[in-house]
Amino acid sequence: MDKLIYVDNSATTPVSARALEAMLPYFTECFGNPSSVYSYGREAKKALEASRQTVAQAIGAFNNEVFFTSGGTEGDNWIIHSVCEQNIKKGKHIISTQIEHSAVLHTLDKLKTQGYEITLLAPDTAGLISAEQLTAALREDTVLVSIMAANNVMGTLLPIQALCHVAHERNVLFHTDAVQALAHIPINVRDLGVDFLTLSGHKFHGPKGVGALFARIPLVPVPFIHGGGQEKGRRSGTENVAAIVGMAAALEEGVRLLDEQRERLIPLRDKLIAGVLQIPGAHLTGDPVQRLPGLASFVFDGLEGQNLIMHLDEAGICASAGSACSAGGKDAPHVLIAMGYTEKLARGALRLSLSLYNTEQEIDYILDRLPGLVGSLRTKGR
Amino acid sequence: MDKLIYVDNSATTPVSARALEAMLPYFTECFGNPSSVYSYGREAKKALEASRQTVAQAIGAFNNEVFFTSGGTEGDNWIIHSVCEQNIKKGKHIISTQIEHSAVLHTLDKLKTQGYEITLLAPDTAGLISAEQLTAALREDTVLVSIMAANNVMGTLLPIQALCHVAHERNVLFHTDAVQALAHIPINVRDLGVDFLTLSGHKFHGPKGVGALFARIPLVPVPFIHGGGQEKGRRSGTENVAAIVGMAAALEEGVRLLDEQRERLIPLRDKLIAGVLQIPGAHLTGDPVQRLPGLASFVFDGLEGQNLIMHLDEAGICASAGSACSAGGKDAPHVLIAMGYTEKLARGALRLSLSLYNTEQEIDYILDRLPGLVGSLRTKGR
Repeated sequence: MDKLIYVDNSATTPVSARALEAMLPYFTECFGNPSSVYSYGREAKKALEASRQTVAQAIGAFNNEVFFTSGGTEGDNWIIHSVCEQNIKKGKHIISTQIEHSAVLHTLDKLKTQGYEITLLAPDTAGLISAEQLTAALREDTVLVSIMAANNVMGTLLPIQALCHVAHERNVLFHTDAVQALAHIPINVRDLGVDFLTLSGHKFHGPKGVGALFARIPLVPVPFIHGGGQEKGRRSGTENVAAIVGMAAALEEGVRLLDEQRERLIPLRDKLIAGVLQIPGAHLTGDPVQRLPGLASFVFDGLEGQNLIMHLDEAGICASAGSACSAGGKDAPHVLIAMGYTEKLARGALRLSLSLYNTEQEIDYILDRLPGLVGSLRTKGR
Repeated sequence: MDKLIYVDNSATTPVSARALEAMLPYFTECFGNPSSVYSYGREAKKALEASRQTVAQAIGAFNNEVFFTSGGTEGDNWIIHSVCEQNIKKGKHIISTQIEHSAVLHTLDKLKTQGYEITLLAPDTAGLISAEQLTAALREDTVLVSIMAANNVMGTLLPIQALCHVAHERNVLFHTDAVQALAHIPINVRDLGVDFLTLSGHKFHGPKGVGALFARIPLVPVPFIHGGGQEKGRRSGTENVAAIVGMAAALEEGVRLLDEQRERLIPLRDKLIAGVLQIPGAHLTGDPVQRLPGLASFVFDGLEGQNLIMHLDEAGICASAGSACSAGGKDAPHVLIAMGYTEKLARGALRLSLSLYNTEQEIDYILDRLPGLVGSLRTKGR
């Protein structure tokens, strides 16, 4: 192939033409500060509120349940701190999972230094967490359960509705990091029943540096970033209008095309999985069925510690071992370690994540090149 | 005038053609995650580091003293929390001023609930804070002095070098919010001597939603937002490459044109000031000399509580009372209250802030329309 094959869409996606087109006027023409009183600023304010409505509708929320952030990481940090502060009298115990994103895990690490006790549920062999596990972990002093909707390394879909139900039965608040799930699987906050949800624009063809936090009425989060009182006093800082408009446009498009894309991507993903599993000693990680439509992830026997990703790069294929979000991707994904894979094996892992723009021709090319690459790396490794 | 006259550049600025052009490839072409290992991600990483160098050079810092943020507000929140956490054994006293931006003041309010004592220095009649005032306020348990480089409401330039010297003599760390100053007056962190400095892209024709924090080596800030460990583990979240590139391009341009623009803007500003002061009962706020090149600010006798801004809007002039960053600009600027102006008078205040794109013709138009507007509002107010 002459063209680079980008199959690392779980790390980040290109901004869609539609999203970019929607953003452009807000850089140079309608650039006013939405908090200003003159009509020029009100245009920006209108765009901001229209975007809020788009995002709210996409997840089944009310407009005033949506707060814009600088991305998924800020959203995770914010809501965890907010719940702790608002429930300080109830206790200092939080439940999450070993397979969460670092934005949750490292925020919880920080809370440990403030006397919080953290229970991290262990995944089963498919990467799933069960209602029974959560039930057993809940305590009188548990203030929050935070479990991701879809895992970023294996693509496993967690049973959020059931897990949330368990937490609510015990009167415990429930947060889901839906950064990988949104616009990839149907997400409705009412159906899921969650109290809080974080999302990030650049995972569904919106721009980087923007995201949103859903907080169920009447659970208004306390501010994490203080200042001029934007976002109804909840998140200060001049509103990032262009990026918010771009994110909303991308989300609207992503949700509109969701069914069509799932129908297209699941067969592509399954072709990829079937093809890769033809390689001797290749294993699928995560659940074979309960997984993101566009995500295929593997480990390879005898490829311990080999940098498959660099060799794929040389063949024009952009993929990753599982997470771009950890120190330059040089560490083995903690998720695979939690799953019981050795560090060496996990470092040779492969995640292929598809989006709107991937084609069957690209899948064929990957399947054509991968067996030889794995074979030659194994030979070198001896 | 057919065209809208935008003279609220202290609230926000349009993205310059140069900055937008620099950003565009990073949305759709070079969109890779800079933390990924393949070459496609490395291109984004290169752009990120080149931008860091541009920003560092613009303020006289080393590259590894610059950390990217989501804007000035996050930067202020971050560094204040960081200094508190790192100096918890030293004490819980912070010195700032009554004329700081809300991003500093409201962060300090929050710290009060955690047992911090806050001393807010009062401005003199020109909006200045003296070294003597700071000397008198410093205590054994003072952990931080945070004083802005240029005030956002009056444009007064604070004597940061002298104030920083006083703090350092007593071994106290010094932070300056330079959001309004950067690319408007020469800023060199070594000359100023500051330990920390915050800046924001959208105040100098860069995009919204991006900023930077300078922290003097070896004073590495502790993380405020936890997660994947981007920015050398100091600020997590996928790097907002396009916006960072845009900010750097705008800053490079702003610093390059600084002298030329000051020579152009100071006479325009002074013409505006002289013209407005022809209106009976008009008073300049802030220091007549020690002020931002493009900022003119006033109060008007007999215009108490009148909404001059709305009437200017009808005449096609976008201006503000002094700050867009407070609850839709409906509150009187706290800075003017701190200066001793009544709330009613402050609510009828006027800030006209110029940028690269304002012309003498626009100044003439404003001076042509303003006296009549003030006069008719005074008549109505009776």
